[in-house]
Amino acid sequence: MSPGEGERGASIPRENRPIPEPGPNEVLLRMHSVGICGSDVHYWQHGRIGDFVVKNPMVLGHEASGTVIKVGSGVTHLKPGDRVAIEPGVPREMDEFCKTGRYNLSPTIFFCATPPDDGNLCRYYKHNASYCYKLPDNVTFEEGALIEPLSVGIHTCKRAGVTLGSKVFVSGSGPIGLVNVLVAKMMGAAAVVITDLSASRLEKAKEVGADFTIQVTTETPQEVASKVEALLGCMPEITVECTGVQACIQAGIYATRSGGTLVLVGLGPGMVTVPMVNAAVREVDIRGIFRYCNTWPVAIALLASKQINVKPLVTHRFPLEKALEAFETTRRGEGIKVMLKCDPTDHNP
Amino acid sequence: MSPGEGERGASIPRENRPIPEPGPNEVLLRMHSVGICGSDVHYWQHGRIGDFVVKNPMVLGHEASGTVIKVGSGVTHLKPGDRVAIEPGVPREMDEFCKTGRYNLSPTIFFCATPPDDGNLCRYYKHNASYCYKLPDNVTFEEGALIEPLSVGIHTCKRAGVTLGSKVFVSGSGPIGLVNVLVAKMMGAAAVVITDLSASRLEKAKEVGADFTIQVTTETPQEVASKVEALLGCMPEITVECTGVQACIQAGIYATRSGGTLVLVGLGPGMVTVPMVNAAVREVDIRGIFRYCNTWPVAIALLASKQINVKPLVTHRFPLEKALEAFETTRRGEGIKVMLKCDPTDHNP
Amino acid sequence: MSPGEGERGASIPRENRPIPEPGPNEVLLRMHSVGICGSDVHYWQHGRIGDFVVKNPMVLGHEASGTVIKVGSGVTHLKPGDRVAIEPGVPREMDEFCKTGRYNLSPTIFFCATPPDDGNLCRYYKHNASYCYKLPDNVTFEEGALIEPLSVGIHTCKRAGVTLGSKVFVSGSGPIGLVNVLVAKMMGAAAVVITDLSASRLEKAKEVGADFTIQVTTETPQEVASKVEALLGCMPEITVECTGVQACIQAGIYATRSGGTLVLVGLGPGMVTVPMVNAAVREVDIRGIFRYCNTWPVAIALLASKQINVKPLVTHRFPLEKALEAFETTRRGEGIKVMLKCDPTDHNP
Amino acid sequence: MSPGEGERGASIPRENRPIPEPGPNEVLLRMHSVGICGSDVHYWQHGRIGDFVVKNPMVLGHEASGTVIKVGSGVTHLKPGDRVAIEPGVPREMDEFCKTGRYNLSPTIFFCATPPDDGNLCRYYKHNASYCYKLPDNVTFEEGALIEPLSVGIHTCKRAGVTLGSKVFVSGSGPIGLVNVLVAKMMGAAAVVITDLSASRLEKAKEVGADFTIQVTTETPQEVASKVEALLGCMPEITVECTGVQACIQAGIYATRSGGTLVLVGLGPGMVTVPMVNAAVREVDIRGIFRYCNTWPVAIALLASKQINVKPLVTHRFPLEKALEAFETTRRGEGIKVMLKCDPTDHNP
Repeated sequence: MSPGEGERGASIPRENRPIPEPGPNEVLLRMHSVGICGSDVHYWQHGRIGDFVVKNPMVLGHEASGTVIKVGSGVTHLKPGDRVAIEPGVPREMDEFCKTGRYNLSPTIFFCATPPDDGNLCRYYKHNASYCYKLPDNVTFEEGALIEPLSVGIHTCKRAGVTLGSKVFVSGSGPIGLVNVLVAKMMGAAAVVITDLSASRLEKAKEVGADFTIQVTTETPQEVASKVEALLGCMPEITVECTGVQACIQAGIYATRSGGTLVLVGLGPGMVTVPMVNAAVREVDIRGIFRYCNTWPVAIALLASKQINVKPLVTHRFPLEKALEAFETTRRGEGIKVMLKCDPTDHNP
Repeated sequence: MSPGEGERGASIPRENRPIPEPGPNEVLLRMHSVGICGSDVHYWQHGRIGDFVVKNPMVLGHEASGTVIKVGSGVTHLKPGDRVAIEPGVPREMDEFCKTGRYNLSPTIFFCATPPDDGNLCRYYKHNASYCYKLPDNVTFEEGALIEPLSVGIHTCKRAGVTLGSKVFVSGSGPIGLVNVLVAKMMGAAAVVITDLSASRLEKAKEVGADFTIQVTTETPQEVASKVEALLGCMPEITVECTGVQACIQAGIYATRSGGTLVLVGLGPGMVTVPMVNAAVREVDIRGIFRYCNTWPVAIALLASKQINVKPLVTHRFPLEKALEAFETTRRGEGIKVMLKCDPTDHNP
Repeated sequence: MSPGEGERGASIPRENRPIPEPGPNEVLLRMHSVGICGSDVHYWQHGRIGDFVVKNPMVLGHEASGTVIKVGSGVTHLKPGDRVAIEPGVPREMDEFCKTGRYNLSPTIFFCATPPDDGNLCRYYKHNASYCYKLPDNVTFEEGALIEPLSVGIHTCKRAGVTLGSKVFVSGSGPIGLVNVLVAKMMGAAAVVITDLSASRLEKAKEVGADFTIQVTTETPQEVASKVEALLGCMPEITVECTGVQACIQAGIYATRSGGTLVLVGLGPGMVTVPMVNAAVREVDIRGIFRYCNTWPVAIALLASKQINVKPLVTHRFPLEKALEAFETTRRGEGIKVMLKCDPTDHNP
Repeated sequence: MSPGEGERGASIPRENRPIPEPGPNEVLLRMHSVGICGSDVHYWQHGRIGDFVVKNPMVLGHEASGTVIKVGSGVTHLKPGDRVAIEPGVPREMDEFCKTGRYNLSPTIFFCATPPDDGNLCRYYKHNASYCYKLPDNVTFEEGALIEPLSVGIHTCKRAGVTLGSKVFVSGSGPIGLVNVLVAKMMGAAAVVITDLSASRLEKAKEVGADFTIQVTTETPQEVASKVEALLGCMPEITVECTGVQACIQAGIYATRSGGTLVLVGLGPGMVTVPMVNAAVREVDIRGIFRYCNTWPVAIALLASKQINVKPLVTHRFPLEKALEAFETTRRGEGIKVMLKCDPTDHNP
């Protein structure tokens, strides 16, 4: 983490780094708003996520927006002064995945704040210009930063095949579950039912558009599936599993209609036991997602047309100097989204 | 046309027919609400549409809903008293089109009020039970009848590939254009621009959700395309052509973004001259639609969840006895949708 | 099993049944060739497969062809004397699965020799005419009967998305594995690697077109995956798992390239433990298959054009009177496909 | 055209250019085999194709293969000595088309021998390393050069949706028509019918795999369609139109089965008159193609596995010094494919 110049934080190491120089296809950005993600907190606390280990000091942050202040020699679609949202993943080579439009699967991709790649929670940051998207005047920096979590929902719902009239079961009412409710409804889903252990999280799901909620306690996976069917009046064609818990994946299989799709978003233990024959003979497809691709233009178009309101998701704001406090807030699970304001001259949304 | 028992209309031949007996897979319906479609008026006035010629007296009407009063021996999913919407096309044989899910293309399909098949603008009507869809309590008969025109929009937007964030150009602001605006927005389109000659029709398009309108006067097809791009800020991925006019089809090709899709809904002269090379080398797909398939369940789910409001489309209601007046009203182009109320005991929506 | 009239088998109950009368949409067939499937043997020996329990005497047989000898009043595309292949699954109602082209998933489907539905291993049999497909003169009855097992491969490879240049890993070299090798190559797969415990079964796979074989002994799933990659020179985009064994499903996940597809064909224990996170974060889709749909016309077209040679698959032939001997042969695992010849006047292929 | 160092050609301007220096992501190649394409001849004779005008001397050639002799600093997957096939189109920026896997549509793409971009018919040539594909030892340089014309067929048949059992109508039996026959059969097409004015060209189509041929003389488009249907025994699901002639496009629409696809490959006059209503109401999709994308890996896999034999397509070979003679040969329409051999030390295939 790089809280920038100025006063010291209590216990986080800090350092000043030189302002980077953009390469030919890069832009230099004055960072404005950066949201804190659960993975940022996880790296901060544990120094690793799975096989990704932080071995050297790493700048966190990948939900970000800022202003172009310098452009590389080859950049034509951006100019200084442009406000942009940043897509954190930038392919390093035109491999088969990039060429076929699935660049998120490129094994050598650069990704902000996935070690060893630095993120953008800092004052000045350079990024590949092709992965910086101009924000229209009527879209705020914070909306721009929120495109990142929104993108997980967009990529998931596209992989799930959500379409007009879909009945959708979202398993887990955390931030990713909420985003999926939001996106599924925007894609024309007729009814969304969502489960969680927590009544308050389910309450939030209702607020963002869930039609039905199920507070799970001691139900078996089959029982959860039955409740889902009962509430929807039919089995859902699509299940979006956001918890990674084995029993929830099982419930997802039992719940999904024959010929439908279960998308695994939440990640739990590497090995899970599932009723695979049940899925197979009913042709229920099981698909995972890895980050996202081709979502920023979609999200900007929706934000520009005011069809989606993500502003209420921001519940806390801190100046970059108070990054430690911001991270502690996120760690304690307070609010929904904590924003760090990196521009000392502009703390507006 | 079959205005039923009772008083005489001024000039339309009328007749009483026996109440039909449902076959094993059929249901007998007491008809409630039947919308008048442009094609009904056309058959009434001209006796033919293209190769479809009315050779014998034919009952009109195919936008309809009613109540089950008798079920055939093999019917299990409906019972007397069920309120249903009627899908007017019923395949007569399990041919390759039916088996692959595109039953609308089956050449031997039965279709209400396409000669020689009778429609359902009458008191009592029998129909294949598999193509009668139970209406939930919170969906009215008229909403049920409006599923038919809504289905054209659903089928079109599905064939067009409308999805989250799509920019859509709808050419022509008649009833089908309006329905496409409505459906495209429900599927997550970020922006819809619509054209027409008539300012008042464009006004209606605004009301149902169009983001931008263009009143066309003497523009060339290329000029229309330029205006579409200017308003959207980019070329639309999708164009829905609802006029059938040659110049509009040409504009649709010029306007559509490389790699996008032009859907032809409106039908004009059989032969048209188009800039085919322009479409081909930019991989702009040109697709037509024929009626619809698999749309009733989608529409009912949306109506039940209150995500779509079609009620304002009904501007006139007449009892079945005043069918002539109703047809005259439609012919004069008054209002949007005229409903005929076939149940003398219930004229509610 | 219904060995028909004439001499007695040693120990199987036999009975004569009346020649059935075809309904309006049915045809009556004089049966010619019926292949014995593993499921037929299983029902014979165990009286059940999973939840499907034989409670009353049931005619076996579902890989079949015969000659039309009588047609129902509504049948127009067949006439007496037509030689036909029989698709054993016939939907009983036009439900959502049928309407969308996935009739194999219809829960109320009739299916030959799945209890309680009788099969067609008999002299005379009636079947829905829409599911009887006319054989061209240059396609034999036995080729017609072999369309059924071939259909499993066609449906699998279509669900797998096999296309030009695909690298395919087939797990398991039994009959279904072999059929998948055959079909994958016909669809343009560039290289197919197949695994099995048995060297002789791998030998057969070579004969039908497998490019590489791996005889598995004590390898871990990861080791199998590594060998597959080494032989192909890259990870396969597609894995077709035909064993149902847990370790093989695991190997299938590890082996499949990011963004690829694992199709589960073989069925083993209901619950299996799999590296789901590995599949999910690499967007490896896991899809099952249930029987097949829309495969007969494809298979007939291929057989008619002589692009596929299935004749060598038939290794044994028995007259219907010797059905017991035929079943014993199959049970002992001799040869590949055993054919029963139901027409006493014509034992030709 | 750049016939290189040494002796003079009769009438073509020649010049020596410096050996280029590869950039970080580029490789320098010693060119080996370059096929002559109709477009090369067209630029040579007319100096333009449509809007693409040769304003400065331009090196021709885009069907090419060679040997890596130097690699840029960022190149990891190639090394000096590697034999490669060259994909001539290299996107210049990561725009929306590249990101979604349709880089052929990128408006700023570099393309060999499309003005103002130089081709590779020369001794030494540098190219983006990501668009150079290593040839396996068992694939010759000439096979590598032939991947370019083969790619047109692959891209076309993929866009057409050719799959197992397809019935295909190819209109026009020139080189592109032949390649489409070849590819369609490799993808599992059950039957291909091809038309042409010339009996000798139809003869060649037979040789590469066409099942039926029709020599067109004075037939109307509808009559051609009828003959296609008669030969196939049904209407084709897919038509590949390779002539660009208006009457042939019309025949393509009439011939294609409802729900099928017509792909336009041949380019004729910009504006054509077509029976659009016929296509639209039968949901026959009309799709164009522009060059190709993601075809080199597919083609190499097929060549490596010996599933396709393109060697007979090469009918003439000339050393680079005799380029003029080679171009004259192509212009006269002799043979099928003329190869220029650019490496003075190795004139092998």
